[in-house]
Amino acid sequence: MIIEVAHIKVKPGHEAEFEAAVQTASAVFRKAKGCKGLHLQRCIEAPAEYEAVIRWETLEDHTVGFRQSELFQQWRELVGPHFDGPPQVRHHEIAIPRIDF
Amino acid sequence: MIIEVAHIKVKPGHEAEFEAAVQTASAVFRKAKGCKGLHLQRCIEAPAEYEAVIRWETLEDHTVGFRQSELFQQWRELVGPHFDGPPQVRHHEIAIPRIDF
Repeated sequence: MIIEVAHIKVKPGHEAEFEAAVQTASAVFRKAKGCKGLHLQRCIEAPAEYEAVIRWETLEDHTVGFRQSELFQQWRELVGPHFDGPPQVRHHEIAIPRIDF
Repeated sequence: MIIEVAHIKVKPGHEAEFEAAVQTASAVFRKAKGCKGLHLQRCIEAPAEYEAVIRWETLEDHTVGFRQSELFQQWRELVGPHFDGPPQVRHHEIAIPRIDF
């Protein structure tokens, strides 16, 4: 399992619209091969900055399958108007699986 | 619920020892008031870089309660020797809760 973290800064005042757009876009990711789910988190220290955390079965499901699909265009059409600059995207593998207390 | 993301770069060759130290340190976080759990993820694009993702009931459970406790010293004693520079820590609130496909 691969964890994509897309660091997204939104334009001033666009926070609510951006969050609604990501909620709508969850239906796009649901259609994407290998996409296992997502959540959106907002930085407390920098409230215009978000992290979209999206889980994929493989790296290529995101970097090849999704990015070369029509679904990627749909995602960008929904959220792109709210971006303040290009997103910074990194991928992670799990080193220590989730522990719950 | 608050999500702490500690961005940690480790010294060259220290990856396995660092991962083992975080595993050991999970027992420290288990004792911390308000700590709900954690996982560790490793960056694919920069394999010396990790994110420790630690969940807290409140921001202050981490920034005040934990950091001023003996437990913080125990955590740093375990993992600090493997750090390549100071960690970069940010906190997030959930904007869209986890969706599973």
